[in-house]
Amino acid sequence: MGPVSYESQDIRTKRIPFGEYLFKKLVQSGSKSIFGVPGDYNLPLLEHLYDDSVKDIGCRWIACCNELNAAYAADGYSRYTNKLATLITTYGVGELSAINGVAGSSAENVKVLHIVGVVKSDAPECNYHHLIPQLQHSNFIGPNRKICYDMVKDRVACSAEYLEDIETAPEKVDKVITEIYKHSKPGYLFVPADFADKLVDTTCLNNEINLCNSIERTPSEKLDSIVDGVLQWIYQSQTPAILADGNVDRFGLISQLNQFIERTQMVNFTTIMGKSIIDETNPRYQGLYAGKSCTDLVRSKFLSCDLILHFGVEKNEVNYCAQGFPYGPQAKVIEFHQSYIRLFDTLNGDEQLFENVNFVDVLTALHQRIDISKLNLQYDKAIFTTYEPSQLNLPEEDTSDVTQIYLQKKFPEILAPGDILVSDTGSFQFGVRDYKLPTQSKFMAQSTWLSIGMGLPAALGVGIGMQDYPRIHICDQSKVPAGYKPKLVLGVGDGAAQMTVQELTTMLRYHVDINVFVWNNNGYTIERAIMGENSDYNDIMPWRWTKLFEAFGDFDGKYSNSSLVKTRQELDQKIEDINKGGKGIELVEVKLGVMDYPAQLQMMLSNMKNAKK
Amino acid sequence: MGPVSYESQDIRTKRIPFGEYLFKKLVQSGSKSIFGVPGDYNLPLLEHLYDDSVKDIGCRWIACCNELNAAYAADGYSRYTNKLATLITTYGVGELSAINGVAGSSAENVKVLHIVGVVKSDAPECNYHHLIPQLQHSNFIGPNRKICYDMVKDRVACSAEYLEDIETAPEKVDKVITEIYKHSKPGYLFVPADFADKLVDTTCLNNEINLCNSIERTPSEKLDSIVDGVLQWIYQSQTPAILADGNVDRFGLISQLNQFIERTQMVNFTTIMGKSIIDETNPRYQGLYAGKSCTDLVRSKFLSCDLILHFGVEKNEVNYCAQGFPYGPQAKVIEFHQSYIRLFDTLNGDEQLFENVNFVDVLTALHQRIDISKLNLQYDKAIFTTYEPSQLNLPEEDTSDVTQIYLQKKFPEILAPGDILVSDTGSFQFGVRDYKLPTQSKFMAQSTWLSIGMGLPAALGVGIGMQDYPRIHICDQSKVPAGYKPKLVLGVGDGAAQMTVQELTTMLRYHVDINVFVWNNNGYTIERAIMGENSDYNDIMPWRWTKLFEAFGDFDGKYSNSSLVKTRQELDQKIEDINKGGKGIELVEVKLGVMDYPAQLQMMLSNMKNAKK
Repeated sequence: MGPVSYESQDIRTKRIPFGEYLFKKLVQSGSKSIFGVPGDYNLPLLEHLYDDSVKDIGCRWIACCNELNAAYAADGYSRYTNKLATLITTYGVGELSAINGVAGSSAENVKVLHIVGVVKSDAPECNYHHLIPQLQHSNFIGPNRKICYDMVKDRVACSAEYLEDIETAPEKVDKVITEIYKHSKPGYLFVPADFADKLVDTTCLNNEINLCNSIERTPSEKLDSIVDGVLQWIYQSQTPAILADGNVDRFGLISQLNQFIERTQMVNFTTIMGKSIIDETNPRYQGLYAGKSCTDLVRSKFLSCDLILHFGVEKNEVNYCAQGFPYGPQAKVIEFHQSYIRLFDTLNGDEQLFENVNFVDVLTALHQRIDISKLNLQYDKAIFTTYEPSQLNLPEEDTSDVTQIYLQKKFPEILAPGDILVSDTGSFQFGVRDYKLPTQSKFMAQSTWLSIGMGLPAALGVGIGMQDYPRIHICDQSKVPAGYKPKLVLGVGDGAAQMTVQELTTMLRYHVDINVFVWNNNGYTIERAIMGENSDYNDIMPWRWTKLFEAFGDFDGKYSNSSLVKTRQELDQKIEDINKGGKGIELVEVKLGVMDYPAQLQMMLSNMKNAKK
Repeated sequence: MGPVSYESQDIRTKRIPFGEYLFKKLVQSGSKSIFGVPGDYNLPLLEHLYDDSVKDIGCRWIACCNELNAAYAADGYSRYTNKLATLITTYGVGELSAINGVAGSSAENVKVLHIVGVVKSDAPECNYHHLIPQLQHSNFIGPNRKICYDMVKDRVACSAEYLEDIETAPEKVDKVITEIYKHSKPGYLFVPADFADKLVDTTCLNNEINLCNSIERTPSEKLDSIVDGVLQWIYQSQTPAILADGNVDRFGLISQLNQFIERTQMVNFTTIMGKSIIDETNPRYQGLYAGKSCTDLVRSKFLSCDLILHFGVEKNEVNYCAQGFPYGPQAKVIEFHQSYIRLFDTLNGDEQLFENVNFVDVLTALHQRIDISKLNLQYDKAIFTTYEPSQLNLPEEDTSDVTQIYLQKKFPEILAPGDILVSDTGSFQFGVRDYKLPTQSKFMAQSTWLSIGMGLPAALGVGIGMQDYPRIHICDQSKVPAGYKPKLVLGVGDGAAQMTVQELTTMLRYHVDINVFVWNNNGYTIERAIMGENSDYNDIMPWRWTKLFEAFGDFDGKYSNSSLVKTRQELDQKIEDINKGGKGIELVEVKLGVMDYPAQLQMMLSNMKNAKK
């Protein structure tokens, strides 16, 4: 073919409305479903959802009841798909309602794009509705239409653009999406209401943005020298251990890490944030390590290892920092992070730090270069037995009531290979730490942002993600029967559920199949565990949870089934029924004791208290 | 008595825990009820709610279902009482959930103190849970515990203090509360968890902070010269008009302004934000003026006035700015604002601006100095007739359905003297503009922040305020029968109600007597009026509203009554029943047409569209 003529280039770069462009770009970048709430500043944009070319690529709107819930749902969508999730709100009122959800995505490295419809680009200065007054020394100094942009930039957003020039708008969109994937943190786009219908160049649609092409690559020379150092330590080690942390998931390395485990046969642990990244049915899985806040058995195993390969490290108070995160006295440690690789020797304090390196490249190179025959693994098989929850030695209880101890024993039975468990922030999530999850299953909860109420809307987002990308979380499809449609299970405390309860109706609306377990312990048990056991600020109103779906739109119980569980026998039966195949939505209210919470929570709280002294 | 000895001074300044100090100060400043949600960083503070000395002064906790709702409730409490309202949340997750509500208080000049429990003052640097990562050029640069303080300062907060020194903490508290009253905008206090139990000096408890002593006083010389100018214009005028705007309420001048009207017998109008400030039963009341967005009749009366005394002026897009706010061609205008007085002559453009002057002093001085005998009122009585809604000439409709037109005719009958009407953001509030409200009644709605969903929790806050300060909104108690307990009425659209619906349970919990009218028009009618009449993003799930209280805690209908109204006859009967005295809570679902919205909304939208061209 000869050189491209100007004419054909003109055809290739035909101009389309920015709204149409944006939705095409979003779908191309992973967001088939868009979460949000309409508002006057975003309506012209939302109208482009009905463009044939947008409908044709399967783009759909998920109308949430409010913006915070929409933000949580978007967060859940991205946690499940590991792709870009998109949230659309309106200026001020909508964007600020959502900000706590987006801040959680920032703290927990979730890829959420928050698009905010703002005032028309050519509108004169005015104190517009939905606009916060800009103050200086307490006095109003005139309208600042970028006031929310100023608030989120470098705080909850790793990238933020307030669009001002329609010609460069497509590039700005690409920039923000690329940075979201690169940093695995939220980004913001502020889109003036008049931009939706303005024509833009479509050239940028030729560049698909995804995780792979967004990460900054490590120069090969630097990479070689790092891998040399890592391999040297691995070959010297007799008891190396792999520690899987949250960012392994965020940077798309679950499959690769599990393959690395299988090839090397190294023993392996998970962190709190890394829970479910490792296939826990692998015979060398040793449990969840959380410094001082895990079982003695897991800790003693971890401390006996002479090399820790910590992949996807995330250092926050809960996962790592304030509670103390000890290593064995002679251990070497390698931290594999998305922006650095750090080798340090706890014995002599030697340290090598390689900055501006992404562990994605390093793990890939490690895979390619490792010589299995040079491994020198000498694990004591009496110590490194296969992980079984029975090692927890949970006490027998003389009661027919459902307790957290009973839940820890029984509840894992609801999960089959490939299933998804979401937990809201609360006491329940602590027991899950020591579950042995089935292969290919996925667990989702917040580990450091810990916003109460996030679970229910996040599970909605997960359910939508499961509709858009069925089984995408399964790395090894051969391990889940071909015809099996993975189950979505949510555990949520009653206090948390009251915060965001209306999103149950959205589950109905979009036919999200889900099993919702409401832990009815009469208030904020997680707070009572900290302080105020009998203080009425920790009480909530008692609800008749089983009546909710009738009010919320399933008038004749066609799509949902609600039940109350008070005894172990009833719980067993419920789990059995659900495993046989329940209705689309099963809501199960489970009565628990007011001060019944898992030992894992008690342990963490004691350690945090001691750490802060 | 002799000089105070050191010993007695020591007794006077006895030290008490900061938590106890804070709650005493809050009650002293007007916040008898405190709204919020517990979280680990605020629990030590909340424990001081149970100090005998705190309970003794009637301080109580109002536990809301989530933080945004708590912020709306605090806003409602302050709107009703015109006193400080207080909201307590926890670091990050709680404070950001609430921020939209507080931003609304900022935009609409409401006195809300937002207290945020934060990490202990002596805690080492760490990526604490609930802490947003601080970024720079997209990269994490270490924890910044003041990150939310940085976000709100000079944006949603007129005053913000992150407490770092326990010795100065009481003064900082006083400073923030004083500035809240001074500017009538929200303030923030970030309180480290360890401060609650530390001892502080009680000297500051001797200084009660309220509206009167917080306002900056105008020097008497300056005041005299301003009042001279104002009086000169008043005495020259033949057709002066008083225009009452929102800040008259916020700065506590309702009673004074109504007295000024009664003394001078000037004709008077209200703005949108000023609705219900003027006693609309006064014979010279002329209706609501909203520039181009009001009835022709009201506008023609307003434009015929030769002097406009605009008290409590608030210039935002809806109330004043973008829609155009014409005056008569030869009118003189005086703007009375909390930070300036401006006299201008529309005929020749002459203008005098007095800055750093509060209209509170000016109105007081005007009252004292005006010589009624020098007034030269020459109103044409044929033009300035007493305002009657019949002047709207609402069309007759041949239907038994409830319509917005019918609501406008019928719904005012639910209001007796002293009653309170709260409207959520939505189509219903536009019809209220042209109601003739009973004497001593109060109407509350957002006029520029316009956050959908605010009404229901705000009404909760109003109801709590009515319990704490019964009849405080009534300026002239003689006009409301002594034994009458004013009624609280809420009008809320179905889409708005779904956003914050769980706060119905809090109304039950605290026995808030209220009449909740849910306008069921099948989605976001106010958005449909703007765009997307048939777009499904404006749809919501249909609910069985009358089932809600059964799920939300009133299991046997002891405290609430829910009913469905489909026809005019049913509505008439319901209003009659409620006026005879209903249950504590009456929830009435009223079916309305999907595209039925008041003409006032249509008019405003057209004018906004034209203004932006």
